[in-house]
Amino acid sequence: MKGRPAQEVALGFAELWDALLPLGRDAGTGGYRRYSFTKADMACREWFASAAAQRGMRASTDRNGNLWAWWDVPGGPGAPFAGSGSAVVTGSHLDSVPDGGAYDGPLGVVSAFAAIDQLRAQGFTPARPVAVAAFCEEEGGRFGLACLGSRLLTGAVQPSAARALRDGDGVTLAEAMAGAGLDPARLGADDDLLASLGAFVELHIEQGSALDGLGAAVGIAEGIWPHGRWRLDFTGRADHAGTTRLADRRDPMLPYAATVLEARQAASAYGGLATFGKVTAEPGAANAISSAVRAWLDARAPEQGVLDHMVTQIEATARRAADAQGVEVSMRRESFTPPVEFDPALRARLAAALAARGPAAPALATGAGHDAGVLAARLPTAMLFVRNPTGVSHSPAERAEPADCEAGVAALAAVLAELAG
Amino acid sequence: MKGRPAQEVALGFAELWDALLPLGRDAGTGGYRRYSFTKADMACREWFASAAAQRGMRASTDRNGNLWAWWDVPGGPGAPFAGSGSAVVTGSHLDSVPDGGAYDGPLGVVSAFAAIDQLRAQGFTPARPVAVAAFCEEEGGRFGLACLGSRLLTGAVQPSAARALRDGDGVTLAEAMAGAGLDPARLGADDDLLASLGAFVELHIEQGSALDGLGAAVGIAEGIWPHGRWRLDFTGRADHAGTTRLADRRDPMLPYAATVLEARQAASAYGGLATFGKVTAEPGAANAISSAVRAWLDARAPEQGVLDHMVTQIEATARRAADAQGVEVSMRRESFTPPVEFDPALRARLAAALAARGPAAPALATGAGHDAGVLAARLPTAMLFVRNPTGVSHSPAERAEPADCEAGVAALAAVLAELAG
Repeated sequence: MKGRPAQEVALGFAELWDALLPLGRDAGTGGYRRYSFTKADMACREWFASAAAQRGMRASTDRNGNLWAWWDVPGGPGAPFAGSGSAVVTGSHLDSVPDGGAYDGPLGVVSAFAAIDQLRAQGFTPARPVAVAAFCEEEGGRFGLACLGSRLLTGAVQPSAARALRDGDGVTLAEAMAGAGLDPARLGADDDLLASLGAFVELHIEQGSALDGLGAAVGIAEGIWPHGRWRLDFTGRADHAGTTRLADRRDPMLPYAATVLEARQAASAYGGLATFGKVTAEPGAANAISSAVRAWLDARAPEQGVLDHMVTQIEATARRAADAQGVEVSMRRESFTPPVEFDPALRARLAAALAARGPAAPALATGAGHDAGVLAARLPTAMLFVRNPTGVSHSPAERAEPADCEAGVAALAAVLAELAG
Repeated sequence: MKGRPAQEVALGFAELWDALLPLGRDAGTGGYRRYSFTKADMACREWFASAAAQRGMRASTDRNGNLWAWWDVPGGPGAPFAGSGSAVVTGSHLDSVPDGGAYDGPLGVVSAFAAIDQLRAQGFTPARPVAVAAFCEEEGGRFGLACLGSRLLTGAVQPSAARALRDGDGVTLAEAMAGAGLDPARLGADDDLLASLGAFVELHIEQGSALDGLGAAVGIAEGIWPHGRWRLDFTGRADHAGTTRLADRRDPMLPYAATVLEARQAASAYGGLATFGKVTAEPGAANAISSAVRAWLDARAPEQGVLDHMVTQIEATARRAADAQGVEVSMRRESFTPPVEFDPALRARLAAALAARGPAAPALATGAGHDAGVLAARLPTAMLFVRNPTGVSHSPAERAEPADCEAGVAALAAVLAELAG
């Protein structure tokens, strides 16, 4: 399902999808640049409010910039005050990585509204409030800290630290929020809101091709690998590329290159993942040896101990290679997410609900961070994955088949019926 | 000689140097950002005009943005029309690489004026016109093509191609020139000006430490190694760094890293130089596998055949490493300068003139391009190098000792007396 989806996807999905599709899409790459509090993001927020209004759902923006749309219990007092710990929440995020695909995040939000449409068409009446949520800055695409909205909501990041985060142009989160009409002074943990929630189920396109290999349209997440980001600064000496003898050089590009190759070797040896996707050379002149090369390592592994070993081995190679070239290296962890195991009881209820209405949904682990992983610290959470036939993610080429999107909506509707019925 | 030079450097040097020193210097790095036609460059041009005016020399800007200051033959008609092929020119350039040092270029221009001061103080009267020149965009720091001013002057680059060159912000050379009050329509070979010149001698700080090893303050260049710049585009597939299996990746960073290491190996094996100083990763997100890595190879060797073998070997490794990762690679030569041998007769006159007044000046080859190398195609040219005790170049840490700068001025004065007497 690339571009406009097929009309057969159930009840409201196509209309919602089509309206969202052009927002923040770059005409050149075809990828999305939906960065928090930009014009593209504000358009996505309006889309969300409109989707809620069309369904008679109460829409609100919480103090951390996350969006909520409430389907209240008929005759009840209205969530989030409808009863502590009772609401069932589903949703995902609308922001993107640079030149990301159409599905990562939006599929979960569109499917959430479509699942509610399906439940209503079936005459379902919720016994608990149901909410659709879209979390702010999940990708960290503008301010560099992934899952920022859910981290703020749960208190996993301090408001003062968040306010001071800067984008690539030096604009702080506080300034960007204020520009979007939100009050950055109100950022922070929202225990009242959290206390009103009973469970969170996030539907997300799979970011690999495991379901495709298993022949399944929908899977259930077991947990999230521990993962982190490390910044490496290789500092050498700027020199003329045309005159400086090899023996006199202190070229930081060489240990950087050795570290890139080692990271792949170590990931392969440990069964993890390691990636250098961001690098800058200073001063960046084609005829000058670099004074510094700054690079970011993304590393993930099935277990904490394995990840520690893998990163230690990569760091040892970086230091050895730097020493050999007279280059200094520093390595600093910029972010880290410990392993997450989604709530076993909730997973069991999801599995049973899905098995009752169709083929069993296989269980999968993932290396990607999600708001569901952050919220897991405060309430029972779970995730549904929808098949990604190519496994491509964080790319304009990311896609899912219409039939699989429909299966995702049906699965999510079954899960909401089970949890809110 | 870092920062302000010692006052003992002869006759006008210190005053000229001190006035030039703050122009275009970045307060943070201490390096220079004297890019053509920027505010910093315009200040350097005013400095040049003022230096000429203080000496009663006629200053002019040629059609390609190069600066000239003429010391006419007393009673003569005034150069450049003072007699075909008679003028003796010295000078260098005032622009810089990003965060370059204070000496690369400016030392040759300041020493030229100071040598004229010294000749005048000695009562020397030229029998031929003497000119000081400062060539435009020698480093290619703004528009990417090194020695642009001298290439245009000699017809080595087409005016239409030059006008269309763009800086990092998309501004064309034509637009930048027009903004500086110059007429880009007048760009192009200036055969009348060239025909009026008899010889060009460029004084330049050495960009290595060979003179230091030989214990000599001043050397004479033999020639310039053939050298070029190649652009490599490694094209893979953007993907999520946290979910894409190693086996499913098409990560262009891996063959780039292998190519960096191979370039160093090949340079070592062939006795040449090879450097990657500029690289960009797209989209450049820390949690995404790159869709593309673009990198620039600077390669130089003592002989053309050696350079060809070296670059062929680097390209073969790039292709092999790219194939192994399912990555495409294209490699394109962006610029190339064939080997230059400076005029043997002129070199012999310089060597004799220097030997007559002090220690013999050793002969050196260099891997760096210079305007003297470009002009060598049209008239006899030579170069003097001044000792660089650390060999550091294209860096804020570049420096020369005051005594060596003084020796350079004295050597240049002796050479001008020999050629213009």
